[in-house]
Amino acid sequence: MTTRHFQFLTVLLILSPAASALAQADPLPSWNDGKTKQSIVDFVDRVTNEESPDYVRAAERIATFDNDGTLWSEQPFYFQLAFALDRVKTLAPEHPEWKEKQPFKGVLDGDLKAVMAGGKKSLIQIIAATHAGMTTDEFEAIVTDWISTATHPKTGRLYKEMVFQPMLELLAYLRVNGFKTFIVSGGGIEFMRPWTKATYGIPPEQVVGSSIKTRYELRDGKPVIIRLSEVDFIDDKEGKPLGINSHIGHRPILAAGNSDGDLQMLQYTTISHSPSLGLIVHHTDAQREWAYDRDSHIGQLDKALDDAAKHGWTVVDMKRDWNMIYPDE
Amino acid sequence: MTTRHFQFLTVLLILSPAASALAQADPLPSWNDGKTKQSIVDFVDRVTNEESPDYVRAAERIATFDNDGTLWSEQPFYFQLAFALDRVKTLAPEHPEWKEKQPFKGVLDGDLKAVMAGGKKSLIQIIAATHAGMTTDEFEAIVTDWISTATHPKTGRLYKEMVFQPMLELLAYLRVNGFKTFIVSGGGIEFMRPWTKATYGIPPEQVVGSSIKTRYELRDGKPVIIRLSEVDFIDDKEGKPLGINSHIGHRPILAAGNSDGDLQMLQYTTISHSPSLGLIVHHTDAQREWAYDRDSHIGQLDKALDDAAKHGWTVVDMKRDWNMIYPDE
Repeated sequence: MTTRHFQFLTVLLILSPAASALAQADPLPSWNDGKTKQSIVDFVDRVTNEESPDYVRAAERIATFDNDGTLWSEQPFYFQLAFALDRVKTLAPEHPEWKEKQPFKGVLDGDLKAVMAGGKKSLIQIIAATHAGMTTDEFEAIVTDWISTATHPKTGRLYKEMVFQPMLELLAYLRVNGFKTFIVSGGGIEFMRPWTKATYGIPPEQVVGSSIKTRYELRDGKPVIIRLSEVDFIDDKEGKPLGINSHIGHRPILAAGNSDGDLQMLQYTTISHSPSLGLIVHHTDAQREWAYDRDSHIGQLDKALDDAAKHGWTVVDMKRDWNMIYPDE
Repeated sequence: MTTRHFQFLTVLLILSPAASALAQADPLPSWNDGKTKQSIVDFVDRVTNEESPDYVRAAERIATFDNDGTLWSEQPFYFQLAFALDRVKTLAPEHPEWKEKQPFKGVLDGDLKAVMAGGKKSLIQIIAATHAGMTTDEFEAIVTDWISTATHPKTGRLYKEMVFQPMLELLAYLRVNGFKTFIVSGGGIEFMRPWTKATYGIPPEQVVGSSIKTRYELRDGKPVIIRLSEVDFIDDKEGKPLGINSHIGHRPILAAGNSDGDLQMLQYTTISHSPSLGLIVHHTDAQREWAYDRDSHIGQLDKALDDAAKHGWTVVDMKRDWNMIYPDE
């Protein structure tokens, strides 16, 4: 470089500090360079560039993210189930009859096979015992306590530390570019809301999830909402577009998922709706996380993987595309 | 004023144009000075002043507004019913049997008494015929067309012009002060969403309302959501706190309503929850709008008016407190 060139560049840098900082800082440092990362950056560039034919007004830049397996891990079973099992153990002294009664006996004996043998009915019994019968404020306090202390049996990390650093970067990158980021998860809406703001930067009003019915009452003159043991809405599969319609009221232009439970959300976001981006997180890294897809009992990814090529969805290969998994690595 | 003073002031104005503009502009010009307006301004000052013991972080500055009778008029009957009646007339040629069949016959004959004689069952039949059976996109187009053209029989105004100028100012004032403004209405969520952004500055994802059930499907390969003729959720009375909990996930710190349908929302917002502000719009102006309260068949305000004093809710006297009603006056 000549001195003259150098001076010229120096002047340029002084004149446009913002532009130079932008050019230098990679907003997605945990994403390896390659076509996956490029497809994301290209999409964001296209929809935010007012000169582009694909420009989308900020009000319509809605991005929806599945949670389990997309923003945090979900093996060996959904973390909300770990919460429920922990709650059964905590509540057991108040329920001596559970020692002899399935599915609770199985939970207390650490015999998950016995629990699962009861199928959906068992699961509903566990949810009713651990997620209902209290006020929403009480449940929030219970979840807040659990999420601050409970650790994963394999990694020893707090569950809330098992979020994907590349996805945290993606959420922040989208928000900086005027997107409004939502969670649309099969998990319980009130199980997520107490911690999604601190963990993902997503406030309660941007969390969509499954729910149980509730009842409002004045208790000793104070307003409370009671959680009832009856399912209200399952935010999974066909439920996801319906949850999006109910809570958000626009079609997203970006949706990210990792399983067949996200298939309909990906369809709704991308088919006959352009510009749009569908993302699938493919769990391919048995060493740093877990590797599973078509035959998994949790987060099965089969039909959505077949459909990805047909609809041009971007498949994120965790092993290849991510140079970090968890933030504390 | 001496020349010196004048120069000093000129310099001040040049140095702080923003501050001077703020000091001069009244953000609520359609509100007459008095204790009602003062209670609003005082509340906003307290929760936004970091030095105040009542300071509330922006993330928690949630304000919820009823729609019918609070943000726009609701007489002689809810405007959504006017929409439904208009739809019956529009659809009548496709349904020759309606000429002989109540409640449709009553609508076509302009005999509202006959329609109302059928009570809730009639209303549900009309809703099913006019609000269901189409996709959400089709319904949005129908509502958008109606709201752009339909006029009120008494005022001759477009219905969307019968919004309250003082409330538009209040919404804007709250947003400038970091509040997130929501509608929480007994009206249909998908009836409101197509026009609330343009009319109130409230985007679809901040609208909570009553809903009917929906179904997702791929129709000719394209994703659609079908509106079904089955009630899903009634966002009125006890439903309002539940709708707030489901869609927003925080307790508001400000709630505004005008009828007993808003009583529970006002309780939930203000009782044992400080700082908070409850507002009731009292329709007292028979000349410029309508005057009604305890005995009205629409927007009955009885128990909530009794409770206002007990809970310190601010009652807005339209005749006394507002110097304008509609924006085009």
